[in-house]
Amino acid sequence: MNPAIDLILSHRSIRQFTAEPIEPTQLDAILAAAQAAPSSSFLQATSIIRVMAPEAREQLAVLSGHQPYVAQAAEFLVFCADYHRHRQIVPDAKTGYAEQLLIGAIDGALMAQNALLAAQSLALGGVYIGGIRNNPAEVSDLLGLPLHVIPLFGLCLGHPAQAPEQKPRLPRTLVVHQECYQHQLDHDLLAQYDQQMESYYHTRSGYNKQQNWSGQVRAILGKESRPFMLGFLQARGFNLK
Amino acid sequence: MNPAIDLILSHRSIRQFTAEPIEPTQLDAILAAAQAAPSSSFLQATSIIRVMAPEAREQLAVLSGHQPYVAQAAEFLVFCADYHRHRQIVPDAKTGYAEQLLIGAIDGALMAQNALLAAQSLALGGVYIGGIRNNPAEVSDLLGLPLHVIPLFGLCLGHPAQAPEQKPRLPRTLVVHQECYQHQLDHDLLAQYDQQMESYYHTRSGYNKQQNWSGQVRAILGKESRPFMLGFLQARGFNLK
Repeated sequence: MNPAIDLILSHRSIRQFTAEPIEPTQLDAILAAAQAAPSSSFLQATSIIRVMAPEAREQLAVLSGHQPYVAQAAEFLVFCADYHRHRQIVPDAKTGYAEQLLIGAIDGALMAQNALLAAQSLALGGVYIGGIRNNPAEVSDLLGLPLHVIPLFGLCLGHPAQAPEQKPRLPRTLVVHQECYQHQLDHDLLAQYDQQMESYYHTRSGYNKQQNWSGQVRAILGKESRPFMLGFLQARGFNLK
Repeated sequence: MNPAIDLILSHRSIRQFTAEPIEPTQLDAILAAAQAAPSSSFLQATSIIRVMAPEAREQLAVLSGHQPYVAQAAEFLVFCADYHRHRQIVPDAKTGYAEQLLIGAIDGALMAQNALLAAQSLALGGVYIGGIRNNPAEVSDLLGLPLHVIPLFGLCLGHPAQAPEQKPRLPRTLVVHQECYQHQLDHDLLAQYDQQMESYYHTRSGYNKQQNWSGQVRAILGKESRPFMLGFLQARGFNLK
């Protein structure tokens, strides 16, 4: 429809990078793009840690569940929800609410998506690393995060050394509801999508597997989801009151 | 640096719209852009409710804290974290973890930012409505949200009828940390920024006020932040275990 929309629609997560660095002017533009995102109540409750030191990157790659591209990417940015900054301005600030966790997660993601799209527009690529939440306390210690700051996710950025196929998304009508939520899942549509995903996983250029979307959901949600997260959040000042 | 980055950097929240509708092909492109966003573990844990009915829009405008543009915008999309879809596939899915709230909030925001940028590229404008979290239970009931689905925020979209000034962001060095988090806030830089914000609020074309950023933080975080949110989340199946 237009070049910006084409750019957005062309997204693929990139996990293999050349050794070429990102130019400082490009990184500047990417960070400016991140900061241009809207912010809830203009609290600007996000900090970004840019990790360059190879040893730290190696440690983060391991802590993220052995994702080597965390060490290999030209840049690795950790997006954090941050109320420490506010508390230096207002020492008795009322923090720790569940609402504030939502604000932090939402605002951080809005910024990150701006950054990723800016990078893509420069012929760079990237991938989000939710895996830093595998070991959030160790990651926080490594990055020196104070109380009231938590790591949300990482973002690898660099020059792509792969051109993966695009992963098919859920059919629009299963995701977008008109007026009210449609409680009854259309199982025929889901079956078609499962077939599409099975074919995608079977034929894509890298790491083929026998899997469909329903099977993937079953595998992930059949297990606990980082059950230590609540304890971590509480220990870091996000009491979720 | 390039048109896509210029588009991202040109963002302003738009709260006044003409009566002109958004073309169906444009809305299609906006929703496709949303769906092109990355998704954590490819769970696709987001649903979007498109609200068109004028009465529902009026109610949402009131429930959001009397924000009239919720009723006036050409389109109003409510982004939701959704584990109901998964539970229809895996009835005994392990849900309700704090981690899953994070996934839902982050993925929803990634999608929404794609949608907003796609809209901006079509000369449309918009604003996020975190205010739907003022009355999350009432909003959920109005939209017929089942258990395991919660409204995150709304997004007004339409043809702009205003051209507001851009709000200055925090200085880069207060937001982006190199290698490790810088614990000590640079109060000189903050003072400069406060002056910049005071001048912005004093001179902008709409709704002038005597305020700086520190004062705004003090006003917001001096009060409780939607203290009912935890209870709401727990009642809707997000037990935050």
